[in-house]
Amino acid sequence: MRVGVLTGGGDCPGLNAVIRAVVRKGVQEYGYEFAGFKDGWRGPLEGATVPLDIPAVRGILPRGGTILGSSRTNPLKVENGIRRIKENLAKQEVDALIAIGGEDTLGVAARLSGEYGVSCVGVPKTIDNDLSATDYTFGFDTAVNIATEAIDRLHTTAESHMRVLVVEVMGRHAGWIALHSGLAGGANVILIPEQRFDVDQVCSWVTSRFKSSYAPIVVVAEGAMPKDGDMVLKDQSQDSFGHVRLSGVGEWLAKEVERRTGKEARTTVLGHVQRGGTPSAFDRWLATRFGLHAIEAVRDGAYGSMVALRGTDVVRVPLAEATAKLKTVAPELYAEVGVFFG
Amino acid sequence: MRVGVLTGGGDCPGLNAVIRAVVRKGVQEYGYEFAGFKDGWRGPLEGATVPLDIPAVRGILPRGGTILGSSRTNPLKVENGIRRIKENLAKQEVDALIAIGGEDTLGVAARLSGEYGVSCVGVPKTIDNDLSATDYTFGFDTAVNIATEAIDRLHTTAESHMRVLVVEVMGRHAGWIALHSGLAGGANVILIPEQRFDVDQVCSWVTSRFKSSYAPIVVVAEGAMPKDGDMVLKDQSQDSFGHVRLSGVGEWLAKEVERRTGKEARTTVLGHVQRGGTPSAFDRWLATRFGLHAIEAVRDGAYGSMVALRGTDVVRVPLAEATAKLKTVAPELYAEVGVFFG
Amino acid sequence: MRVGVLTGGGDCPGLNAVIRAVVRKGVQEYGYEFAGFKDGWRGPLEGATVPLDIPAVRGILPRGGTILGSSRTNPLKVENGIRRIKENLAKQEVDALIAIGGEDTLGVAARLSGEYGVSCVGVPKTIDNDLSATDYTFGFDTAVNIATEAIDRLHTTAESHMRVLVVEVMGRHAGWIALHSGLAGGANVILIPEQRFDVDQVCSWVTSRFKSSYAPIVVVAEGAMPKDGDMVLKDQSQDSFGHVRLSGVGEWLAKEVERRTGKEARTTVLGHVQRGGTPSAFDRWLATRFGLHAIEAVRDGAYGSMVALRGTDVVRVPLAEATAKLKTVAPELYAEVGVFFG
Amino acid sequence: MRVGVLTGGGDCPGLNAVIRAVVRKGVQEYGYEFAGFKDGWRGPLEGATVPLDIPAVRGILPRGGTILGSSRTNPLKVENGIRRIKENLAKQEVDALIAIGGEDTLGVAARLSGEYGVSCVGVPKTIDNDLSATDYTFGFDTAVNIATEAIDRLHTTAESHMRVLVVEVMGRHAGWIALHSGLAGGANVILIPEQRFDVDQVCSWVTSRFKSSYAPIVVVAEGAMPKDGDMVLKDQSQDSFGHVRLSGVGEWLAKEVERRTGKEARTTVLGHVQRGGTPSAFDRWLATRFGLHAIEAVRDGAYGSMVALRGTDVVRVPLAEATAKLKTVAPELYAEVGVFFG
Repeated sequence: MRVGVLTGGGDCPGLNAVIRAVVRKGVQEYGYEFAGFKDGWRGPLEGATVPLDIPAVRGILPRGGTILGSSRTNPLKVENGIRRIKENLAKQEVDALIAIGGEDTLGVAARLSGEYGVSCVGVPKTIDNDLSATDYTFGFDTAVNIATEAIDRLHTTAESHMRVLVVEVMGRHAGWIALHSGLAGGANVILIPEQRFDVDQVCSWVTSRFKSSYAPIVVVAEGAMPKDGDMVLKDQSQDSFGHVRLSGVGEWLAKEVERRTGKEARTTVLGHVQRGGTPSAFDRWLATRFGLHAIEAVRDGAYGSMVALRGTDVVRVPLAEATAKLKTVAPELYAEVGVFFG
Repeated sequence: MRVGVLTGGGDCPGLNAVIRAVVRKGVQEYGYEFAGFKDGWRGPLEGATVPLDIPAVRGILPRGGTILGSSRTNPLKVENGIRRIKENLAKQEVDALIAIGGEDTLGVAARLSGEYGVSCVGVPKTIDNDLSATDYTFGFDTAVNIATEAIDRLHTTAESHMRVLVVEVMGRHAGWIALHSGLAGGANVILIPEQRFDVDQVCSWVTSRFKSSYAPIVVVAEGAMPKDGDMVLKDQSQDSFGHVRLSGVGEWLAKEVERRTGKEARTTVLGHVQRGGTPSAFDRWLATRFGLHAIEAVRDGAYGSMVALRGTDVVRVPLAEATAKLKTVAPELYAEVGVFFG
Repeated sequence: MRVGVLTGGGDCPGLNAVIRAVVRKGVQEYGYEFAGFKDGWRGPLEGATVPLDIPAVRGILPRGGTILGSSRTNPLKVENGIRRIKENLAKQEVDALIAIGGEDTLGVAARLSGEYGVSCVGVPKTIDNDLSATDYTFGFDTAVNIATEAIDRLHTTAESHMRVLVVEVMGRHAGWIALHSGLAGGANVILIPEQRFDVDQVCSWVTSRFKSSYAPIVVVAEGAMPKDGDMVLKDQSQDSFGHVRLSGVGEWLAKEVERRTGKEARTTVLGHVQRGGTPSAFDRWLATRFGLHAIEAVRDGAYGSMVALRGTDVVRVPLAEATAKLKTVAPELYAEVGVFFG
Repeated sequence: MRVGVLTGGGDCPGLNAVIRAVVRKGVQEYGYEFAGFKDGWRGPLEGATVPLDIPAVRGILPRGGTILGSSRTNPLKVENGIRRIKENLAKQEVDALIAIGGEDTLGVAARLSGEYGVSCVGVPKTIDNDLSATDYTFGFDTAVNIATEAIDRLHTTAESHMRVLVVEVMGRHAGWIALHSGLAGGANVILIPEQRFDVDQVCSWVTSRFKSSYAPIVVVAEGAMPKDGDMVLKDQSQDSFGHVRLSGVGEWLAKEVERRTGKEARTTVLGHVQRGGTPSAFDRWLATRFGLHAIEAVRDGAYGSMVALRGTDVVRVPLAEATAKLKTVAPELYAEVGVFFG
């Protein structure tokens, strides 16, 4: 048995832990061989591989990133993409493929598996934790820890200068990172993409916070939006490429709050630091277990499935369902943490 | 409505986060008043209280320890303990009691609630993560992170000197911290209380590790034991109090490994650093949600219940059941990680 | 003896450690009393004080920010500023004043001390480490550690996606944070305000880095500037206040590198996280020793002086000299680290 | 020109940073070749080498340990040791040798250089910071940071349970780590090898600390000793090798404090975690600069010298002097921090 492995989409701490677990168990327990495909779907599309064996995965557990490289290449949008993948898998004598990635990467795996007879097993990866089929995805806990540490640090700056500090965290479509890090960091306002926010309400929380002689931290997901009519994120300027420039919601909100409350406000955009570097212990644990169960799924011939976390168990779910629905923050959960606002 | 709060048993990061959430929601949403009882059950036993209101809980979210103090006082073992507690609760005009603690503390709450008509709600706390009624308890993730960071550091020492490093972590009856931190830290051997270990097998893993030119890390829970006949943990010496001195399993094992393999071995006992200091983001999240749900249980009159985590939901379970069974590492789960041994 | 203490200018980890050391030694060894002035020079200007005694400084050593608050108020620019300060110091019966701050705050202290007979002792504070009279200032080591950790994390993102990552760190006039964190983080290019950079040279380093199959990290101080003709940092747009908006050098450089090399480039602006939160061990040590020596200077009547670090010794230097010259990165030192570029 | 490099003695964060800097500058600026000798002096003694070029040093900057391995082999105690080293250096066509290590390693280099005409340059390495010729050695700052973080965590445990916590840190002959981490961690008692301590004085500080309702942390260097007659560290038992077992000063002191004050006391021995893992930013900076200057010393033919830090400058000092005198904590400095005791 020869198993191909690829990692697609954005960087996410824990990818190497999955790869290591797949290879360790595959080689030691099942005697499998492996082919590492480079840069996501570009690998099988172009037949680009790297050797993948036990020496190759030594020491990679604590390392962020992915030794296989990644890309956003979508073979469904490439001419003869599917045919080329099948040819290259055959050339490489690959019997099964483990695809580690997010909605896009797994969507391709689902199609390949369902319509084109390629033996695929999926491992979910999204730093945003927004896949509905699994309780958590690896990388998320690391991102939340990094954002929480940053918020911890910003409290003292806010208080020494009696400023509003707006922290923009990742989360285009789901507010999980904002919700968890905002709660853990003791933020006074948390804004998520799932619910449009009212700037006046934000200003009123900010103002009430100053009354108790503390300074407010506002955590806002990058995808959060104000209520209708309130916001023009598009800045009129053009950048050096001639593109219209988008200023982020964090910067916009800081200015609005400053304008409406008269309090100084500053923005911090955490950006890429949230997705790099060594994974937290939880993410190493989760990623490793996903890897162990993925290769077990291959051994069981459970193609078309994806591993997922349910409570403390790793289970299998159909790949097709896995990516069907975005997991967003439920209104009740968001309401639950509202007691800390203001 | 006036609600008493107490924290019992060993220190655990997240206790303050629970207290803060209970008080914030209790005051702001339900208009409750609070009495903070000092040092676990000693507080209601002796009528020792501290004021507990919103200013008292400001800024405590990231702080380890407990602002209420803790103790291992067991009122069931104190003459007229129950009667004195009931009297003091009456004197303090306390209508309901939130007890935050482990097996012992919650066991008392279960008895008080079941047999003596005291309105109790429980919040589970054990750094060892060994309560069967909940997927996770707060403090555990922090401990695992600390142990994992220590193991990360020890790898380089092991390798520079080609030594065996034995790391003793917490866990008297359950091996959760050893299992999670050992896996996350890339340990080569993990020993837990649930399964007696064979020193020769440990030595064989250690020896095989050296063959691939790496040096082994052995993670051992403090409650792990060798197979029959193998171990005399009791050292013959007496300490300055005249007590027979127990040397720990870590130290014992290092010596045995050294003796049997001829390789230098060293021990690190992580000890109290695992249970102090600021909680991880996950533990702040979990502890806060436990607090929010505990005060909600009070409002619902759900006495005799304990809050618990199931997947990503916080649910209520009967206090009596909650502490009935120790949650230990299942043999299948331990077997699953065995692929990384050696 | 009654001693006033104030902290001025930007937030900086270690301020509380200075305050604690001043008060502990002043009260315990010399029997002094203290007045804490609020918000930098605003405190003595408006007579705004807070009690400052041993209970007030308990537990503040590890906390960022300043319990006295800070501001950039300059009494020399306020009508009758000096007269009002002298009146308020007299009203508060303050015999000597310890001013903790950067160039501006200490500049005022130097004038007050030299021209107006106010008994001042200075403690230097600048996160940028750009005061020529002292080897290091506290806060700097913390900022460098935070920036280095961020760079460590960004390496994996850069490599997984084969992108250029530009990291903008603090440093308007001096490149110390960029130099130290860039070197410690293994950056491939470091750009500082002291030497105008050549974008084509940067692009050539970036390109050569990709050839060895790694991805480049470019660390740029916020005050770094390209050679003549190369840069228009001023964006043509106006923000919501009608101000012309400046886009930072990091963002500008990323776009230029992208345009000239064809490689994807991203920017991270570390911002305020560099100056908040708990101080590093080194900064706690340095700040504490500065505090101990400042109160000793008061006892010795060494007014008009500032404490400073020379090697491992804390010495006194004249306040006037202390702020006379900016400490910038010497060309030889910058050249020394150039071996790691590209 | 062909340069040999070796690392001797105990593990210390920053060794790899030195090696990387030596090789990067040696190859890129001077066109030198390198031979990496394995395991300290064992390498040149037995002719054991590893290739050492630019690819070999990629990515090692943030990694603890040493890619060359280390040992405590002393060629002066090996028959014909010097002759064999000279022969092997000749066989390897090595023109100069950079020895990175502590007192023992550099002592050999001094003899080889002075008496036997081997062209040696030294780089000082001691985690204990006890070499008199240099302001700081790399590894020390990392160790102090780790110990300080541990002390930060132990405060909350001490306070929640009103216990004495004794923390034993490294330092056999000099108390630098105890002094710096104890001060930075807000310890209430710091005990160092340079001054014998009085247990009754320690107990009196401990007792006074409890009066202000805080719990004491006692930091003790492993080499600290009580005044005459007070201590029997030698435990009567023998270990499994038949050696008499030494119980550490920390454990002994905790028992004495418990016995004399009646307060519960616990010990934490930090051990090897202090010397492993990724170096702090300061240590990466210092180690890198030491490496750059060491290879410059080779180019200048400055044999028999060692690089050293003076203020912010890296200078050269004679190897012979470098190891002549232990740098211990001066009584005045120890007195300076005494204001925080109790």
